[in-house]
Amino acid sequence: MSTIVIDTCAGEDQGREALAAAAIASLDLDVQMVVVGDEDEITSALDGLAHDAERLRVVHAADPLPENVDPRDIRQAAPRSSIAVGLELTARDPDAIFVSAGQPAAIVSLALQTLGRLPGVDRAALAAVYPTLRHRGPNDDPFALLLDVGATIECTSEHLLRFAAMGAAYASKISSVERPRVGLLANGNNPANAPLRVREAHHSLRGRDLPFEYIGLMRGDQVTHGEADVIVTDGFSGDVLVRTLEGVAATADALIRRAEARFKWRLGVQMLGGGIAKLREFTDWENYGGAPLLGLDRPVIVTQANSGSRAFVNAIRLGAKMQRLGVISAVAEAVMTSTAALGEEEPS
Amino acid sequence: MSTIVIDTCAGEDQGREALAAAAIASLDLDVQMVVVGDEDEITSALDGLAHDAERLRVVHAADPLPENVDPRDIRQAAPRSSIAVGLELTARDPDAIFVSAGQPAAIVSLALQTLGRLPGVDRAALAAVYPTLRHRGPNDDPFALLLDVGATIECTSEHLLRFAAMGAAYASKISSVERPRVGLLANGNNPANAPLRVREAHHSLRGRDLPFEYIGLMRGDQVTHGEADVIVTDGFSGDVLVRTLEGVAATADALIRRAEARFKWRLGVQMLGGGIAKLREFTDWENYGGAPLLGLDRPVIVTQANSGSRAFVNAIRLGAKMQRLGVISAVAEAVMTSTAALGEEEPS
Repeated sequence: MSTIVIDTCAGEDQGREALAAAAIASLDLDVQMVVVGDEDEITSALDGLAHDAERLRVVHAADPLPENVDPRDIRQAAPRSSIAVGLELTARDPDAIFVSAGQPAAIVSLALQTLGRLPGVDRAALAAVYPTLRHRGPNDDPFALLLDVGATIECTSEHLLRFAAMGAAYASKISSVERPRVGLLANGNNPANAPLRVREAHHSLRGRDLPFEYIGLMRGDQVTHGEADVIVTDGFSGDVLVRTLEGVAATADALIRRAEARFKWRLGVQMLGGGIAKLREFTDWENYGGAPLLGLDRPVIVTQANSGSRAFVNAIRLGAKMQRLGVISAVAEAVMTSTAALGEEEPS
Repeated sequence: MSTIVIDTCAGEDQGREALAAAAIASLDLDVQMVVVGDEDEITSALDGLAHDAERLRVVHAADPLPENVDPRDIRQAAPRSSIAVGLELTARDPDAIFVSAGQPAAIVSLALQTLGRLPGVDRAALAAVYPTLRHRGPNDDPFALLLDVGATIECTSEHLLRFAAMGAAYASKISSVERPRVGLLANGNNPANAPLRVREAHHSLRGRDLPFEYIGLMRGDQVTHGEADVIVTDGFSGDVLVRTLEGVAATADALIRRAEARFKWRLGVQMLGGGIAKLREFTDWENYGGAPLLGLDRPVIVTQANSGSRAFVNAIRLGAKMQRLGVISAVAEAVMTSTAALGEEEPS
């Protein structure tokens, strides 16, 4: 049985929705929950929530995270933050998974300090799942994977190669796609115009015998189309891309709401019913459960700061699924295999 | 009167729409058109197009652009390409403007080799206009500016500072916004997490007395909201961002078309009428005329490869407007003023 360690100090609502999800999961899912945060607040909130007390343990840790500091200094500034303590608990239990809606930079930095790295991995990658027009695999999965979306802000070509292997292994397990199609995010399809790191990674991946299919450079407008199952980029561009998608979703939603406010359009929106629902589903990040942080020896799932309980429950489900399917060992194996295939030296 | 030099060898349709736009502009706008391309093809196509022959000059230049070469080698490989010759004609005429739907990397490289750079500018920036929820200025302009979107793939903080000054001067003239609000694109709002170039530029811009208002770091999801009139980034991330916006627009359109294909939704789409039109207008890049390339002593406007004649006519209008409002000298002045205010040394 998986142990889900969940941070209830983070997010825009200070953990209310995370705790609600933990309570639901303790009743409905085959998991052991550990909720980390302010014990008094958690205990009093749990009074009003149906939950299985035997499957929900509370651990007190509520040092506030310092603001505007270098993420590497967070542990020293707040040794008993819910993230630091949650990750320590996760490190001690081989069946544990950590879920948090905290600042990704803080989670990444503390995870790298607290958990073990997979052999051959020196940098972690945060992988975002996003919907595409094309569906894939036996489950008709509309989701593709983009990594890194914020863990490693400045990348070398070696980092990109490692991220390709990790992302492909993850997608292969989670979406049951046997040989995932992997693309490198670029400014256009001509390698001569790409930054050095992308050009080098492109030349390394092309024509190699790998456990995934390298399909070449991908432009931003090819991302939502879904030709690639996995798109690899540096953490800066990945963060920009995935947040832009979120922003557009919010904008489309605002435009639809404005349309609904007009009397003569309201009926049209109602009649569209399933059509609008489809557009909204496409842009509803609550469906996707959160972003796994890859490269470490435990599953870590980062959810959005404004996640509702549904998003947290989906993140908990995702964590349990990662463990059930042995995703971490598959990622570890993929890194070894592709490092060998690419003839690279292992990073220290 | 402006001279518009227009490339009719580029784009997905090999210049058909560019030529149609040139014919329209020769009749309707107060401009002199120079169309550059395959003379025989242009002459025979013009037979079927209403145009003012006195205002439309044809120049033959049709060397095909080499594929997959380093953009810096294009001139030598194809000395009489329509882009190379078009830019040479533009360099010789102080009232000329160059418009092309060619590969941005080729245009940028040839423009830097052929045209003069503004004092203090060593790298050019391609600025994309995109729609936002917030409207601005006396014209209720919904458009904001993002630069660089592909001219300078790897940037230093000095490049970003120069792009901020150029973009602000451009937006101020074109959208009549007196003190444009300028943001730096980043992965989150904490400078400690940003790449070095962004962190340095942020610290340089903060609290300085500049002809624009620096409003800080902006996340990808803040872009379409429109808080900033100008968003500054490196050419790699800018290309990714703007193409992602295009891709989402195409995806939304595909989803709406799928909805229309279902009988029971068709009526709803019809009733929505103006609502869908508003969403489509928001995502219709033909309205925006193209991306100006800033930092050079002539206006250069890059249109999308799949531009229709309406997009080219809008690009021609934009070029004429840039000249009428003295945008180039305003940009030159802004670079000098902000370089002085930021206490930087001028780049050689």
